[in-house]
Amino acid sequence: MKRTSIELADGRELIYFDERDDAVRDEIDRRDLPPRPVAGELRYDPLVDEWVAIAAHRQTRTFLPATSDCPLCPSTVDRSTEIPAFDYDVVVFENRFPSFNHHLPAEPLVAPTPLSPLRPAAGRCEVVCFTPDHNASFAALPHDRVRTVMAALADRTAELSALPEIEHVFPFENRGEEIGVTLSHPHGQIYGYPFVPSRTRAMLAAARRYADETGGVLGSAVLAAEQEAKVRVVGGNDHWTAYVPAAARWPFEVHVVPHRHVLDLTGLTDAEVAAFAPVYLDVLRRCDGLFGAPLPYIAAWHQAPVRHPDRALSYLHLQLTSVRRAAGKLKYLAGSESAMGAFINDVRPERAAAMLREVTL
Amino acid sequence: MKRTSIELADGRELIYFDERDDAVRDEIDRRDLPPRPVAGELRYDPLVDEWVAIAAHRQTRTFLPATSDCPLCPSTVDRSTEIPAFDYDVVVFENRFPSFNHHLPAEPLVAPTPLSPLRPAAGRCEVVCFTPDHNASFAALPHDRVRTVMAALADRTAELSALPEIEHVFPFENRGEEIGVTLSHPHGQIYGYPFVPSRTRAMLAAARRYADETGGVLGSAVLAAEQEAKVRVVGGNDHWTAYVPAAARWPFEVHVVPHRHVLDLTGLTDAEVAAFAPVYLDVLRRCDGLFGAPLPYIAAWHQAPVRHPDRALSYLHLQLTSVRRAAGKLKYLAGSESAMGAFINDVRPERAAAMLREVTL
Repeated sequence: MKRTSIELADGRELIYFDERDDAVRDEIDRRDLPPRPVAGELRYDPLVDEWVAIAAHRQTRTFLPATSDCPLCPSTVDRSTEIPAFDYDVVVFENRFPSFNHHLPAEPLVAPTPLSPLRPAAGRCEVVCFTPDHNASFAALPHDRVRTVMAALADRTAELSALPEIEHVFPFENRGEEIGVTLSHPHGQIYGYPFVPSRTRAMLAAARRYADETGGVLGSAVLAAEQEAKVRVVGGNDHWTAYVPAAARWPFEVHVVPHRHVLDLTGLTDAEVAAFAPVYLDVLRRCDGLFGAPLPYIAAWHQAPVRHPDRALSYLHLQLTSVRRAAGKLKYLAGSESAMGAFINDVRPERAAAMLREVTL
Repeated sequence: MKRTSIELADGRELIYFDERDDAVRDEIDRRDLPPRPVAGELRYDPLVDEWVAIAAHRQTRTFLPATSDCPLCPSTVDRSTEIPAFDYDVVVFENRFPSFNHHLPAEPLVAPTPLSPLRPAAGRCEVVCFTPDHNASFAALPHDRVRTVMAALADRTAELSALPEIEHVFPFENRGEEIGVTLSHPHGQIYGYPFVPSRTRAMLAAARRYADETGGVLGSAVLAAEQEAKVRVVGGNDHWTAYVPAAARWPFEVHVVPHRHVLDLTGLTDAEVAAFAPVYLDVLRRCDGLFGAPLPYIAAWHQAPVRHPDRALSYLHLQLTSVRRAAGKLKYLAGSESAMGAFINDVRPERAAAMLREVTL
């Protein structure tokens, strides 16, 4: 694999991850781009002890452009996109409309109230393009490309973790207009947060309690329990198991979990990376087969936070969730979920697992 | 006000709250209804220490029926609905497709894994109809009707709090197909949870920390800070203030907060109840004026949990949130919010408050 870092016209970094070691990436971005926005604000919500990012500049972000205006397709002789090259394998670049940004504002920020301190929404948001084909999908990638994506995500996890302002690195893919995707070209993203997000905090707190009570690693115990129960397992091999969790909160939710206790993507062995592609692609293809249409989903890599004292209790896994609950019907987060955090799942996890296993590929 | 409790054909309770003390409610529900479902399962998610309700029977619930089939309209001589009477002021009845239910299953439940204990999803789900007019909205109610709704919610809070299985009472209104409302007739709901939901737990934990550090009540301090800052206040009177919180996580979010430290709806004085209607209706009408169309929203009453040791640190308030971020654009909960609990808000709270204040009514 060859890694080539370049600078876009407005100073953002773009990195090519090429499968051919002799790839030459010398195209120059000659667009006339406006200056990058400065970082927005992070405000503290005292009622629930969480940080909220205020990113007003994102209101003007690109919204469902025509395919001919797609910023994630390779450039052509007639049109310059975010990617200067005429073709690519995997490309990662800084988001033009970032929620978190290391371009800090010059003026000092004023707290909205003494109970709501604020700070710049420092950090980094990156876009991960994994296919030049506008109409492809992650599920359609060849195994080698998945390996290249994993290498790129590990590279980014290592680099972002080294930045002093970043406390957590979160690679994910949003797929489908049903969950608000504003660019139809398939792509993933990476958020480098300047705080530990609340789900990560909840997972760490649960892992800490479990360790105190048993001396064990919660992630290992949950995996072992699902392997033992079998009924919710939908796939796997020597290195990974994919299962619908016993207390799934989404109609379709699959966790893809490495057998070895690994903290983040940089900790996977080559064999584990190679073994991930067949398991994950099989899950994705089953998902698309459920209702005979591309399933809208969020695929979220849960990694260890960068510097948290309980970092070693984290357990790397991918959480795939879908809002589709039946053909033509979506699960919405209404009062109970959205205002209270109390999830109601209309599909039994055992049923969801059986449906996924029964898909004919 | 007159309160009349009756039993529907399948044994569910329905309560009329009539503004006329001489209302007679002797209509009988003669429908041939299937038996009520038994309670689903509550499963423990060990990864994040939360309970998830599995309610598979809800997959068959009524989904966007034609107006002529609306189950929340009053009955007519030709058609029997959920409400036997031919007219009503406010009616509360047990949901036919409840997420929580005191009809417990006869067979013992088997835990899916040793790490995911489960129990019946005991509790109660009620529907609150506040107008017989299918095309009305809460915002269009007269002040007296709002008072009757508040009386009904206080009545239900008291009754549900007395049930041994219920730990938290949550009145709310989901409004708009954009957030998944499946019945277009305007209505609210009440969930009686058999656990303390995670947002309530987070608010209690924050209130406990604040009390330990300062000896004060967090809710009072936040209200005072917003009144002092003024810039996010959108309305109010002697008893209530409505403001966009400093760290709002939704593009449009308004908290309507009583000036006196009250734990739940049963604790409001008559004067406070009477004073709520003008403030809340003004907020709702401003919301609908933002984009010249009914704003989709979730209106959530945050009350003290029933028996929690820190119950006295709770502070009653209504949290109104909307997913609309601009005309024709919605805020979706994608990777960062949904998988991580890290909210990105594209609208500055001060701007949202100014927009609400500037609406011409």
